[in-house]
Amino acid sequence: MSVIQTDICVIGAGPVGLFAVFEAGLLKMRCHVVDALPAVGGQLTEIYPKKPIYDIPGFPHILAGDLVKNLEQQIAPFHPGFTLGERVDELQRQEDGSFIVSTSEGTRIACKAVAIAGGLGSFEPRKPVIPQLEAFEGRGIDYMVKDPEKYRGKRLVLAGGGDSALDWTIFLAEVASELSLVHRGSSFRGAPESADKVASLAAEGKINLVLNANVVEVHGREALEAVIVQPDKGESQAQAADYFIPLFGLVPKLGPIDQWGLELEKNALVVNTFDYSTNIPGVYAIGDINTYPGKLKLILCGFHEAALMAQSAYKLVYPDKKFTLKYTTVNGIQEL
Amino acid sequence: MSVIQTDICVIGAGPVGLFAVFEAGLLKMRCHVVDALPAVGGQLTEIYPKKPIYDIPGFPHILAGDLVKNLEQQIAPFHPGFTLGERVDELQRQEDGSFIVSTSEGTRIACKAVAIAGGLGSFEPRKPVIPQLEAFEGRGIDYMVKDPEKYRGKRLVLAGGGDSALDWTIFLAEVASELSLVHRGSSFRGAPESADKVASLAAEGKINLVLNANVVEVHGREALEAVIVQPDKGESQAQAADYFIPLFGLVPKLGPIDQWGLELEKNALVVNTFDYSTNIPGVYAIGDINTYPGKLKLILCGFHEAALMAQSAYKLVYPDKKFTLKYTTVNGIQEL
Ligand SMILES: Cc1cc2nc3c(=O)[nH]c(=O)nc-3n(C[C@H](O)[C@H](O)[C@H](O)COP(=O)(O)OP(=O)(O)OC[C@H]3O[C@@H](n4cnc5c(N)ncnc54)[C@H](O)[C@@H]3O)c2cc1C
Ligand SMILES: Cc1cc2nc3c(=O)[nH]c(=O)nc-3n(C[C@H](O)[C@H](O)[C@H](O)COP(=O)(O)OP(=O)(O)OC[C@H]3O[C@@H](n4cnc5c(N)ncnc54)[C@H](O)[C@@H]3O)c2cc1C
Repeated sequence: MSVIQTDICVIGAGPVGLFAVFEAGLLKMRCHVVDALPAVGGQLTEIYPKKPIYDIPGFPHILAGDLVKNLEQQIAPFHPGFTLGERVDELQRQEDGSFIVSTSEGTRIACKAVAIAGGLGSFEPRKPVIPQLEAFEGRGIDYMVKDPEKYRGKRLVLAGGGDSALDWTIFLAEVASELSLVHRGSSFRGAPESADKVASLAAEGKINLVLNANVVEVHGREALEAVIVQPDKGESQAQAADYFIPLFGLVPKLGPIDQWGLELEKNALVVNTFDYSTNIPGVYAIGDINTYPGKLKLILCGFHEAALMAQSAYKLVYPDKKFTLKYTTVNGIQEL
Repeated sequence: MSVIQTDICVIGAGPVGLFAVFEAGLLKMRCHVVDALPAVGGQLTEIYPKKPIYDIPGFPHILAGDLVKNLEQQIAPFHPGFTLGERVDELQRQEDGSFIVSTSEGTRIACKAVAIAGGLGSFEPRKPVIPQLEAFEGRGIDYMVKDPEKYRGKRLVLAGGGDSALDWTIFLAEVASELSLVHRGSSFRGAPESADKVASLAAEGKINLVLNANVVEVHGREALEAVIVQPDKGESQAQAADYFIPLFGLVPKLGPIDQWGLELEKNALVVNTFDYSTNIPGVYAIGDINTYPGKLKLILCGFHEAALMAQSAYKLVYPDKKFTLKYTTVNGIQEL
């Protein structure tokens, strides 16, 4: 696989990682952003997209999802690259001080500086306890829907009772040849409108809704062929399936980051407040993932950290140029 | 004069001073804000209200004046007090560690902590060089229009060629009994629409427009009675006047701040990045006025500094309570 070349590799596409692209872009540095999630926005997208935030300066209130959209628009002139749905597993410092960053799927990014904006860690699926489940990963078991087209004309079993199980059931009902949603309870935690929609899809016979039941076994030879659904009352039943997608939410895990030789304190990366650099030269940590005296895990703090990080990374990317602060009001935005 | 009581006295109503009110308010601390200018917004209001800023996170662009309005709206639930048009001249630390802040007009504010958000300094008028001018200050010479009603039915002479001279000429034409605008050039630097409006007021005989001329003398016994206007070509002329208002722009001056015993470096207050406190306990400096390694004079950095300042001031205002970070998304905003 070819290596992606960039100035700064940003690990994490939360609000702070996104804004880092902007601050870097102002200084004519290109970024490539990697996130384990299939969408940008970090906690805002994954945990509270429809909730208002009140402490973003200049917004008396803004929905988390809208803040993410605005940030995407703000960084668009700088055309960042994105690798989504892949976790950064390795960080290798080269002899010349540059880096190779590698993901879970083998994507490699060569860069002059690394900005870790990993938040509380990479969001990892909460996996149900089912024997042999992990053996089928990549062969019929998925924990996130990255590309819905993958499921066209296939037989799917989804499990879960939250928004993501409901939303994907509604969406994939049109895509799959057969779709069952298995939920251990009888009512849903997700948005009532979505629950109603799922109920009517079931009533119309477009999906198969199995309440008060759990998937307890997975079977197949090379790939997944069937799952066993066990209702609270009654006999278990085999259900033919090309894919089983348990959607029980995501939990952030620091994961591989603690293997990169970076100084840690209570699961956060220790930085100085001069430029939010870590103990490895050229590696910065910004946003929720870092710690320093006085640290507040707030979005607005991460924005400031991104600005100072960019100022410092500039010296690595353009060692011969002198940094001068330019006001955007005076100089505008130049596309990259 | 009675003393205003508050938790934090914020010196400077620029974007950073305003946002400090918000961060304080979240922690249930009341603020009183003082600014030498008659309006809030600092440099944004005084220098570039109609220009777009591109690097406020979450706003692909926003007019400086709109950012100020948004910040006013964002802090409204916390009902800050304001003393505008007065410069803070003195800062006295009391024996119990609290402070008395005093202004040029004798207003006094008692507070537990002081947040200096003084930007490049207090905006002071650029004064024309006219003999005896300062002797008439407060007796017919004003450099800013604080309360237009003061000039109702009076004879005014304004001088200047920028937006503020044009805008006040248009506004005060309705208020004054007679108004002359004296401008040393023949064309105006201010907005073309305003210049056109002034020209038509002159054509209609509603104001007296004197181009290519300067006010060179001021006369009066107790108070101002007349000014002498000297055209580039021709004879000087006496012009009866109750008020002469030279509007040649404002320049920021660090002014009294350097008399308060605070550690300075290149006209900025030295702070640590733990809580942006100065060398005097209980006195913080945030925004453009402070300096520390890595400092960038950017609005978004001042926002972050305000948040950490508030966290630290909380210990002074509520010594018995423990600070815990609460998310606005989870806790909302409680009015003060
Ligand atoms: C319910 C709730 C309410 C909140 N309310 C507020 C509020 O009102 N105001 C406020 O300021 N803050 C609030 N916060 C906190 C705010 O969401 C965080 O401060 C913010 O999300 C931090 O942004 P970030 O970009 O640093 O990290 P995150 O948003 O956590 O994003 C980090 C991203 O990095 C990715 N990542 C991590 N490691 C890797 C890896 N190895 N490979 C690939 N990707 C990786 C993750 O998948 C994630 O998408 C709230 C948080 C919650 C949970
Ligand atoms: C043309 C121009 C374009 C800019 N563009 C950008 C940009 O694109 N992005 C960006 O982030 N920044 C930009 N800036 C910088 C930005 O305006 C400043 O960072 C910001 O104004 C700092 O805010 P502040 O609240 O710290 O101070 P200020 O806005 O300077 O406000 C300080 C206030 O304190 C008052 N004050 C000071 N001393 C006293 C006293 N003793 N008593 C009473 N009042 C006092 C002053 O009168 C003033 O109103 C620009 C600046 C200029 C001039």
